[in-house]
Amino acid sequence: MADIETDLVVQDLTPQIVVVRLNRPDRLNALTRETVMALNDTLDSIAARDEVRAVILTGTGRGFCSGQDVAAADARNRTAPSGLVERMFWQEQFAGMVARIRAMPQVVIAAVNGPCAGAGMALALAADMRLASRSAKFLNAAVRLGLTAGETGMSYMLPRLIGASRAFEILITGRPVLAEEALAIGLVVSLSDGDTLMNDAEALARQILANSPFATKHTKRIFWENLHAPSFGAALELENRTQILASMTDDYKEATAAFTDRRVPDFKGR
Amino acid sequence: MADIETDLVVQDLTPQIVVVRLNRPDRLNALTRETVMALNDTLDSIAARDEVRAVILTGTGRGFCSGQDVAAADARNRTAPSGLVERMFWQEQFAGMVARIRAMPQVVIAAVNGPCAGAGMALALAADMRLASRSAKFLNAAVRLGLTAGETGMSYMLPRLIGASRAFEILITGRPVLAEEALAIGLVVSLSDGDTLMNDAEALARQILANSPFATKHTKRIFWENLHAPSFGAALELENRTQILASMTDDYKEATAAFTDRRVPDFKGR
Amino acid sequence: MADIETDLVVQDLTPQIVVVRLNRPDRLNALTRETVMALNDTLDSIAARDEVRAVILTGTGRGFCSGQDVAAADARNRTAPSGLVERMFWQEQFAGMVARIRAMPQVVIAAVNGPCAGAGMALALAADMRLASRSAKFLNAAVRLGLTAGETGMSYMLPRLIGASRAFEILITGRPVLAEEALAIGLVVSLSDGDTLMNDAEALARQILANSPFATKHTKRIFWENLHAPSFGAALELENRTQILASMTDDYKEATAAFTDRRVPDFKGR
Repeated sequence: MADIETDLVVQDLTPQIVVVRLNRPDRLNALTRETVMALNDTLDSIAARDEVRAVILTGTGRGFCSGQDVAAADARNRTAPSGLVERMFWQEQFAGMVARIRAMPQVVIAAVNGPCAGAGMALALAADMRLASRSAKFLNAAVRLGLTAGETGMSYMLPRLIGASRAFEILITGRPVLAEEALAIGLVVSLSDGDTLMNDAEALARQILANSPFATKHTKRIFWENLHAPSFGAALELENRTQILASMTDDYKEATAAFTDRRVPDFKGR
Repeated sequence: MADIETDLVVQDLTPQIVVVRLNRPDRLNALTRETVMALNDTLDSIAARDEVRAVILTGTGRGFCSGQDVAAADARNRTAPSGLVERMFWQEQFAGMVARIRAMPQVVIAAVNGPCAGAGMALALAADMRLASRSAKFLNAAVRLGLTAGETGMSYMLPRLIGASRAFEILITGRPVLAEEALAIGLVVSLSDGDTLMNDAEALARQILANSPFATKHTKRIFWENLHAPSFGAALELENRTQILASMTDDYKEATAAFTDRRVPDFKGR
Repeated sequence: MADIETDLVVQDLTPQIVVVRLNRPDRLNALTRETVMALNDTLDSIAARDEVRAVILTGTGRGFCSGQDVAAADARNRTAPSGLVERMFWQEQFAGMVARIRAMPQVVIAAVNGPCAGAGMALALAADMRLASRSAKFLNAAVRLGLTAGETGMSYMLPRLIGASRAFEILITGRPVLAEEALAIGLVVSLSDGDTLMNDAEALARQILANSPFATKHTKRIFWENLHAPSFGAALELENRTQILASMTDDYKEATAAFTDRRVPDFKGR
């Protein structure tokens, strides 16, 4: 039984940056059902905090997240297998993690500090960006466990993130993608030495947060929305209307004035 | 006139792996109308064989497939040009090859042993994965022949496989993409020395087939279906329901038990 | 006030190739409202010229295009801010540039001779292909100016051109992408030394124009249309019907005959 109080650590790094840390290092931060529920509550709670503008997702110890706790699943399978409705409920709780991450108004950065496997890999793919330590490893061994690799959003995200040719091979074989390859194929933004990873993630968050809150928030939202725009014209319509809204903010006027005056803008978030 | 009996060689490598080999080496395995019809029949026949789980597509000799036999097409154009309905029929037979490959329940691996051009390149792009020998070359010279490069599925596949920026340049210029570049841009999974290509393709097929049949089959199906999912949410719905089905198979229970027991699972395909 | 007569230079390089050159080198070819209107008229006019088959878009001097003229925008904001309807009008004029480029029947090549920023980067992304000099730099600092980076088509184009993983990081940070990185990630086709860039762009245009006009024109059109095809089958339907049309042209017959005769085809564009 997981100890929810300690399995998930939420820390306000600054008033605008929250770190969510999976904290079962002895299990490489494997996800129990309880951890999934706690993570979903946490994500809901952060999403509602207007002042928070960036979330860094990471894990304690050597691993990022080793995915669903297979030992726990096996124990259930042997003793009290779930019925259909219960299975569907839990499947949707797991998928609910990535659905929440993708719907968050904040920019979400995965600081992948070690192996991320299965649903753990799905968490990393659902983030807006991934930074990795040199010991990071992406792995979805679902196919080895009798499950489809198209799970918790990965069949949607991976081909769109890095192209379908590489994505299919990675998912169908269930092979590991090491940090260097992840960088080469664009899956991660950068590689960090292990002890600088969180500093690098925070620096990236601060760089993004130096910009106008409205602009950052809606750049994220439009980007992912237009990833499935039905046409170029439809994408333009959403872009144009949003840009008009942006141009009516005080922060836009401040930004153009600061540009002319060659000074740092003072954004008020309105 | 093609000799259908020998223009296409179908070989059961194992009960689960079938090799389909284009076999007109003196023409770099160019496709006549007869070969196309024979290939389509062959693909239909393999698709219906439940025990077959992987198909390796390759060519005899120096080439993979040099595409439509232009000499034959020219001879027709000069002597008895086809009418509109007949042209449409043949166009759809050519496109039918790639439609069949993409709809097959089996994993399809293209072992690209040399030049693949035009409709031959389309066959390679339609496969789930591509392995190549160092002498492989991808080329769609359709634009040089008065035809559009958006043919037999390539306008759909290439930008999704490797990104639209590189894909457009390749198709509009009709230039060759050599093996090294194909690897660098992710078009192929790996490069093999010529005489190890088929071994490497078989090893990849065996690696994939070591996993549960249901999982492999539906990972393929979901992956390509969700490549045109209208939204992330729609993709999740398909994923979730499929995963529930997977989790109700005996093979899933066997896999989790084998994981706990640290043994190789014994999948029964049910 | 911009001098429209000189801010935009249109030159017929050959009867088939037109160069459109932004010409405000002292401002790195920043876009005033007047330049945008002039460019839109120019693009409409070129689109209607049947004999023109390729357009090269470039800038005079050190820069390609530094985007919207922020100083002019700031002056307006301080003195006579635009009302909502007027803002929307201008937003759609800016977006109209990229909508026109993407709808042109001609192949559009961006010869990126230096920094391209904001709406300037959007012009480059809207082109069918990008060539760059070693001093080229892609930058969308919209987020620093209180505006969303999802503007003038970039939220649609960038993830499709190079994959969403790299695209998101580039747009949300507003960081520069230098020439070498642009080549590595496939954003540009090739790098040129500064003084050979226009020669290289012209050579690429000539290579493309050596092919049948119908084939080139419709390869472009199908490629971008099928980038948002709702399914593989739908993409095939458009491809097949277009290929039949291509195969009914005289140029197709000429091309296959020339292939057999081992001579250069003489395309008539019919």
